[in-house]
Amino acid sequence: MRYSQLLIPTVKEVPAEAEIASHQLMIRAGYIRKLASGTYTYLPLGWRSLKKIMAIVRQEMDAAGAQEVSMPILQPVELWQKTGRDVVFQDILCSFTDHRGRSNVLAPTAEEVVTSVAAAEISSYKQLPINLYQINTKFRDEFRPRFGVLRSREFIMKDAYSFDATAEALDESYRKMYDAYCRIFSRSGLKYVTVEAESGGMGGTDTEEFMVLCSAGEDTIVHNEDFSYAANIDRGEVDPPSTDDSLSARKESLEEPSELHTPDVGSIEAVCSLLHTTPAEMIKTLIYSADGEMIAALVRGDHEINESKLSRTAETEAIELADEAHIESATGARVGFAGPIGLAEKVSKMVVDHSVAAMAVGIAGANKTDYHVKNVVPGRDFPLEGANVLVGDIRNAVTVDTHNGQPVVFSKGIEVGHVFKLGTKYSKQLDCSFLDEDGDEKPCIMGCYGIGVNRILASAIELGNDESGCILPINIAPFEVEVLPLNNDDEAVVAEAERIYKALVAADIDVLIDDRSARPGVKFKDADLIGIPIRITVGQRGLKEGKVEIKLRTEAKPTLVAKDEAVALTVKTVAKLKQV
Amino acid sequence: MRYSQLLIPTVKEVPAEAEIASHQLMIRAGYIRKLASGTYTYLPLGWRSLKKIMAIVRQEMDAAGAQEVSMPILQPVELWQKTGRDVVFQDILCSFTDHRGRSNVLAPTAEEVVTSVAAAEISSYKQLPINLYQINTKFRDEFRPRFGVLRSREFIMKDAYSFDATAEALDESYRKMYDAYCRIFSRSGLKYVTVEAESGGMGGTDTEEFMVLCSAGEDTIVHNEDFSYAANIDRGEVDPPSTDDSLSARKESLEEPSELHTPDVGSIEAVCSLLHTTPAEMIKTLIYSADGEMIAALVRGDHEINESKLSRTAETEAIELADEAHIESATGARVGFAGPIGLAEKVSKMVVDHSVAAMAVGIAGANKTDYHVKNVVPGRDFPLEGANVLVGDIRNAVTVDTHNGQPVVFSKGIEVGHVFKLGTKYSKQLDCSFLDEDGDEKPCIMGCYGIGVNRILASAIELGNDESGCILPINIAPFEVEVLPLNNDDEAVVAEAERIYKALVAADIDVLIDDRSARPGVKFKDADLIGIPIRITVGQRGLKEGKVEIKLRTEAKPTLVAKDEAVALTVKTVAKLKQV
Repeated sequence: MRYSQLLIPTVKEVPAEAEIASHQLMIRAGYIRKLASGTYTYLPLGWRSLKKIMAIVRQEMDAAGAQEVSMPILQPVELWQKTGRDVVFQDILCSFTDHRGRSNVLAPTAEEVVTSVAAAEISSYKQLPINLYQINTKFRDEFRPRFGVLRSREFIMKDAYSFDATAEALDESYRKMYDAYCRIFSRSGLKYVTVEAESGGMGGTDTEEFMVLCSAGEDTIVHNEDFSYAANIDRGEVDPPSTDDSLSARKESLEEPSELHTPDVGSIEAVCSLLHTTPAEMIKTLIYSADGEMIAALVRGDHEINESKLSRTAETEAIELADEAHIESATGARVGFAGPIGLAEKVSKMVVDHSVAAMAVGIAGANKTDYHVKNVVPGRDFPLEGANVLVGDIRNAVTVDTHNGQPVVFSKGIEVGHVFKLGTKYSKQLDCSFLDEDGDEKPCIMGCYGIGVNRILASAIELGNDESGCILPINIAPFEVEVLPLNNDDEAVVAEAERIYKALVAADIDVLIDDRSARPGVKFKDADLIGIPIRITVGQRGLKEGKVEIKLRTEAKPTLVAKDEAVALTVKTVAKLKQV
Repeated sequence: MRYSQLLIPTVKEVPAEAEIASHQLMIRAGYIRKLASGTYTYLPLGWRSLKKIMAIVRQEMDAAGAQEVSMPILQPVELWQKTGRDVVFQDILCSFTDHRGRSNVLAPTAEEVVTSVAAAEISSYKQLPINLYQINTKFRDEFRPRFGVLRSREFIMKDAYSFDATAEALDESYRKMYDAYCRIFSRSGLKYVTVEAESGGMGGTDTEEFMVLCSAGEDTIVHNEDFSYAANIDRGEVDPPSTDDSLSARKESLEEPSELHTPDVGSIEAVCSLLHTTPAEMIKTLIYSADGEMIAALVRGDHEINESKLSRTAETEAIELADEAHIESATGARVGFAGPIGLAEKVSKMVVDHSVAAMAVGIAGANKTDYHVKNVVPGRDFPLEGANVLVGDIRNAVTVDTHNGQPVVFSKGIEVGHVFKLGTKYSKQLDCSFLDEDGDEKPCIMGCYGIGVNRILASAIELGNDESGCILPINIAPFEVEVLPLNNDDEAVVAEAERIYKALVAADIDVLIDDRSARPGVKFKDADLIGIPIRITVGQRGLKEGKVEIKLRTEAKPTLVAKDEAVALTVKTVAKLKQV
């Protein structure tokens, strides 16, 4: 295509609102424009890239035996009420009430819809497995959209849903999707890792995320140095602290608990400051409510509670911090003074983090307004076992932790894909069942599999950029090759550039020619900014010697080649780069 | 692809809720499933067809020099307020208020967004012309969705927007789109006509619709027998009735108007019944409000007012029937008794249909509750000229009308495309301007061009079907060829069917093989229902003679061909059918 006939509005200045490289460069290179908070128009270059990504996704999904469908964006709220996800997702659901007063959810995902579609069509085990997917717009009412297309209110998602008759068959469907995702991200030129993840609002059991590691990522990954273990911090398990045998003996000899007057001093920091102690010596007590019951959670003062892990350990679904009134009625004290002594009898469950269980002694709230207690000995002054007491891993990993004995490290990542084994949660709720070989009715066993299409582009730019602009992988770049005639007033230069351009088009190369009558400096700057992988420069000086320049965007210097060899060489280079 | 691995849930029964052939067959052939009122899931077959249509649209738009982009579905309501279309479109706008209280319109079209995008990037005449298009989901809050995907609440639209520097350049952009549309519909296998249309809520001047003529169409087209003239009934002009010279003389000699007591008799039918007259002898007086002013419109009792034509003749934008209070204050009578005598002084404009002006005498309302007047002579008892009196064509055409002296006929049509010359309406309202060669700032001159992607499929099925199922044009059929082995337990049959299948795949033919172990009758029925254009049947009997059957879906009988020639012949037939 011709540069002069494309809307490529490049921008010199770094846009003030863009914090990260991909957001800045997608605007500067004329890929996107913001319409409103969290919504973007894709201009021709950005849209070409997205179309290439969608084509890769489609090819690999088809090759894996998934069938493409298209489901409505408008979903009746009644479907969401059936699964209870109108409540679970309420913070991010976009919903629209029509002129007839019916409430419609704008799809953030489509488990409910696909399960109701499948329920009507699946009757026998002979029809299974079925995997249905779509590439469609999704919506999230993000309160704070940011990082450009990485966290937006409207985005393109590939979502797939598998239906199987047995758990083994689900494993097979899941594996096929996992493998397809590996190919999709590799072909898109992304370096990625897979991590154990938390299923969150989706329900289900096993789930893994595909993460692109980069500083702009919003997710934190806990992993071993060699990635033999990697998990989202929501999920990442750490070893319990090692305790020496003398601990229990030492505990026995410690002083009895005694109250300390700490008026209006409720936060860990304030207590530490008043009592000249450190957060690591404090026991933090948090009161949660889950399914109408109260749950107490104890973590060390220097640790952060992890609600996903707490929820899993306590075996509850939706969990949230209790409100003031409930906290006060459970502890008998104002918020800030909850503590473990005597608490187990007052709540449904008490969940104690490993690190608290391993403390010899600590300071905690007294369950009495304006008082704390020192010399609190876990196991002596409050139970570490019992019918409603659980000890487990309920906090975020920190740098001194280990997993399987190896130190953990932390990386930031962008989630580009997510695969879930859902099990029968949705098929039971929405009556999606089949008759098995014995004629027994059983719920379909489901999996679901998502890819953030826009995020693939943004993360490719996070990984591939320099001070001059984007460096895009060839399979998802808007064009594979850019032909750049240096002097548009020189007939020989123009003729040779056009000859090369046309020969490349004829060879099925996706090529852009910068046919603008602009100064060479402008053309070079724009070429670097938009980030086409291969550039062929045709200039007067080179032509005199029968040569043109070929330069990879990833390399600093061009190579001079005979002009008659340029096309063949480029075709070969394109083929090589495309092979991943 | 293999039938056994595709979700093709065909249905024997005609679905009760589906009134027209395409709706019935799209459900029966497993192309679509209804999710809720006016929303449909496309299953694999339907989606394959839509993807083929979108590919044709994309190719022709690209070939015409348009650039593909993607604009958000969520549009800030503030943009719509700038053009006033939040009011004009309010009956069909879907809008969603987000958690921050911002109101978002779900795109029914994108003039506002594209103009604001272009406004930020266009500065000079050198950048023009620009034509930006997208293929994206659109929403209309239809109060009564019907006819399946023909009138739905969510649909796929190709919308394009051109920006030009001069009216001549717009003419050229418009012509390119018009030509591209002709190719798109031809390649999709549709017979269509183009008709003059009304711009409605879009604004602008010239506009034409691409119509597929069929009884299921919701639009009425007024045209000459030879289609030398064709227009949407909203727009279709008719010749004024011929009047003989004696009319005005005769009028003079008529009796004076006299009042008739018609208590509680307000409708045309009731008055006719009471007074033993016919609607053709009545003058119907309607009171409209437009831009805060009152407009009276007079049509014959047997004619239907056409609000689009009235609006154009009266040169007003939004026009609607006045409410009771306004009617009573303008006429001094209850609704049902408005009449032309003395009315011109009480309203801003009085618009008289040609046919009323041509009446010798008539009966009309008396502007007095419970009274009518007879012997009302147009031109004598109320004016046919004057500062605020207009005589024009403001009614729907009827069968006795003519256009340019030729009788008009009526056809039903489905609108599949619409092209508009918008002019500067949006560019002025949204500050989309450029500097011309002289450095003067001017608003861009715009056009817009829409195609209903789903409607192409539905109208193709309206045009192509029989009692057995769909008959799809090859370029938009889910598959080009279906291979049908008659006996799946006969190894020779299966082997030959597979050989043909694989040879066709290798020849780049889009082919489906019915590999199910089902009875031949079931396979034949399903094949006819889903409507693949070419069927190759492999059976025991034929094979004994070295033959297979090739049958076009459009033809009643198959042809027996030598099995070794089947592939080459099919490849040739596909190529021939694809050429349109």
